[in-house]
Amino acid sequence: MGDRPPPLEGLFVLDLGQIYQGPYAGFLLAMAGADVVRVEPPEGEPTRRRAKLAGASLPLAILNSTKRGITLDLKSAEGRGLLVELVKQADVLLENYAPTVTERLGIGPEVLLEANPRLVYASASGYGRSGPSRDDLAMDLTVQARAGFMAVTGWPDRPPVKAGPAVCDFLGGAHLYGGIMTALFERERTGQGRVVEVSMLEAAFPALASNLGLHHNSGGEVAGRTANRHGGMSVTPYNVYPARDGWVAIICTTEDHWRNLAVAMGRPELAEDARYATHSARSACMDEVDELVGAWSAGLDRDAVWAECLAHRVPAAPVRDLHEVLADDHLHARGFLVEVDHPELGRVTLPRSPVRYEGSALAELVPSPLLGQHTEEVLAERLGLDAGAVDALRRRGAL
Amino acid sequence: MGDRPPPLEGLFVLDLGQIYQGPYAGFLLAMAGADVVRVEPPEGEPTRRRAKLAGASLPLAILNSTKRGITLDLKSAEGRGLLVELVKQADVLLENYAPTVTERLGIGPEVLLEANPRLVYASASGYGRSGPSRDDLAMDLTVQARAGFMAVTGWPDRPPVKAGPAVCDFLGGAHLYGGIMTALFERERTGQGRVVEVSMLEAAFPALASNLGLHHNSGGEVAGRTANRHGGMSVTPYNVYPARDGWVAIICTTEDHWRNLAVAMGRPELAEDARYATHSARSACMDEVDELVGAWSAGLDRDAVWAECLAHRVPAAPVRDLHEVLADDHLHARGFLVEVDHPELGRVTLPRSPVRYEGSALAELVPSPLLGQHTEEVLAERLGLDAGAVDALRRRGAL
Repeated sequence: MGDRPPPLEGLFVLDLGQIYQGPYAGFLLAMAGADVVRVEPPEGEPTRRRAKLAGASLPLAILNSTKRGITLDLKSAEGRGLLVELVKQADVLLENYAPTVTERLGIGPEVLLEANPRLVYASASGYGRSGPSRDDLAMDLTVQARAGFMAVTGWPDRPPVKAGPAVCDFLGGAHLYGGIMTALFERERTGQGRVVEVSMLEAAFPALASNLGLHHNSGGEVAGRTANRHGGMSVTPYNVYPARDGWVAIICTTEDHWRNLAVAMGRPELAEDARYATHSARSACMDEVDELVGAWSAGLDRDAVWAECLAHRVPAAPVRDLHEVLADDHLHARGFLVEVDHPELGRVTLPRSPVRYEGSALAELVPSPLLGQHTEEVLAERLGLDAGAVDALRRRGAL
Repeated sequence: MGDRPPPLEGLFVLDLGQIYQGPYAGFLLAMAGADVVRVEPPEGEPTRRRAKLAGASLPLAILNSTKRGITLDLKSAEGRGLLVELVKQADVLLENYAPTVTERLGIGPEVLLEANPRLVYASASGYGRSGPSRDDLAMDLTVQARAGFMAVTGWPDRPPVKAGPAVCDFLGGAHLYGGIMTALFERERTGQGRVVEVSMLEAAFPALASNLGLHHNSGGEVAGRTANRHGGMSVTPYNVYPARDGWVAIICTTEDHWRNLAVAMGRPELAEDARYATHSARSACMDEVDELVGAWSAGLDRDAVWAECLAHRVPAAPVRDLHEVLADDHLHARGFLVEVDHPELGRVTLPRSPVRYEGSALAELVPSPLLGQHTEEVLAERLGLDAGAVDALRRRGAL
């Protein structure tokens, strides 16, 4: 992959993130080469505390690879003082507490930017740092409800349903990373830091582009749930089709795709049939076309349907379960998924960053830190504290 | 909001994006103040061509606000020559063609970085620029299938189903923006551009953190579909509950949330009841707890349930349809959603960026360009061509 250093080598980041949105931005920074130090309360952040209850140990490992970890009690004046001293050396502080929490603790953006005018203070939350809903509690589930994601997901004869993955949390975290990097780029030119902010609700909204388009085209009638079919019921085939041992997603966005699919299905005559010649024609008899495709796919194994589609240049993919996703040969061949021996979890499959910087080696995946694993190391290195001083701070409840 | 210039003022971006993933990264750059010039083929990019068929006119407007638009025929040598001349002045070129398309046209990263070593060449695709699946066709639908999103979305007694919004496309685009900004930051320090790459499949993967955690905790058994309930069936209440006129998402992540909800429901005795004292206890009788909550919510209007939950600090949100989302008072109060008079669409509601740079005014929302609207303007400004020269290029099929 080349021998250039990673793009963020030498950058120092304080990651006060919790759950997913904040820590994911910190993960992307760490994977791009920054020295990311996770700052947790002495009892650990909520994901760590929930590790046993809700299956959060692996998420903790996924999100914190290659970061170091320290504890600071931000409810103690001494703990906050240490944070401010670290901030004076930091390029970025990121947090996703509820808005106004850091201000009330006395470590809000105003205080920290005064301590270090070159700091990028990055804040992520459910609804942002302003507006009437600023203080409402938000989680991925409630943002999916309010953003309209549920209204357009699932079956028309069933209640609205969420997307299974925490898509709003991660859309928020990915945007936060972009915002941090934008402010850092600007700082190289102006010398000034600033506050960057992402609201999960807003980060979710643009993903509705297709659904909003159909809503608009229908004259403002509400776009409903169409399961795996096209939201506007105007592109066909566009569905998940049965196979002998599973399901395959097949989508024909161009007329060529349809003609190719007809050949793949061993039914070249369909490509010439005027009844199916255009998306409009096929959508007018969508049930019939879905049955034609389904009758073919149901006679084959899932991976055979997939292979036939790919061989004929028809966009398709198997519906995979998580076990299969973790074993995806492509993701392993690219070095995106890696087998790691984790001190708490044993051998697990962890991801690198979805962003790849050609010319540099792929980032090393160091297992996520134990709670407070690097407290001594970081306080010595950054603030010159010796072991005795750290012990004393711990006894006084600052760490 | 303050009077600092936007962070990317003065940056010049060539946006060869199509559909969603690439153009969304260009949109985030434009909203941060860059001069983003969209480069389309003479017949328009696929979204423009599909505008009538599949409801894509509004998506085109959402994704291309505040960009300028030119046409270049990259199949003509003269068109490619013009692109290379523009690249010499550009900071970023972004594209989301299938991998190897730009190489085969002779405008791949090697050629363009030789023409301008400071260029950030940003490539987004379904599966990335390497690996066994590199050349497979991919769309949001097929990536949702292959990434495992469908396997964990929807109802256990129904087939797997996609998330309604194009979450993989937009996760990809948001990551691409972060990657571009990272390479630009690095260039300020090294003077060197580079190739940045995002695969939609990889950008989707981390959002499965919770699902992968539950899969891991179950000893590798497949995490199934649990509709709106917690994926591990171990957090309760966690669901979408009926109201008189709709649905409300309610989630209790802490025991305090549950006690608060009991009070909100007018059932304070439940907060003291040992049968419901912990998540484990409540999850052991999940149907019963869901019925308790549902019996309360079903007697009220949706917004009353929501208001009671918020007043008692219980995370909750109404399940909103798209009409309501477009009218969300919070999103309008923050200036995220704006009413714009669009030359082709009339009055429409469009979003600004989910990333906010405090200290600068919110970006101006200029309606998306018509096909080739700024060809003369940009070629005059950047390459010094006069109207006659542009006419001649057009006649020769270069534009």
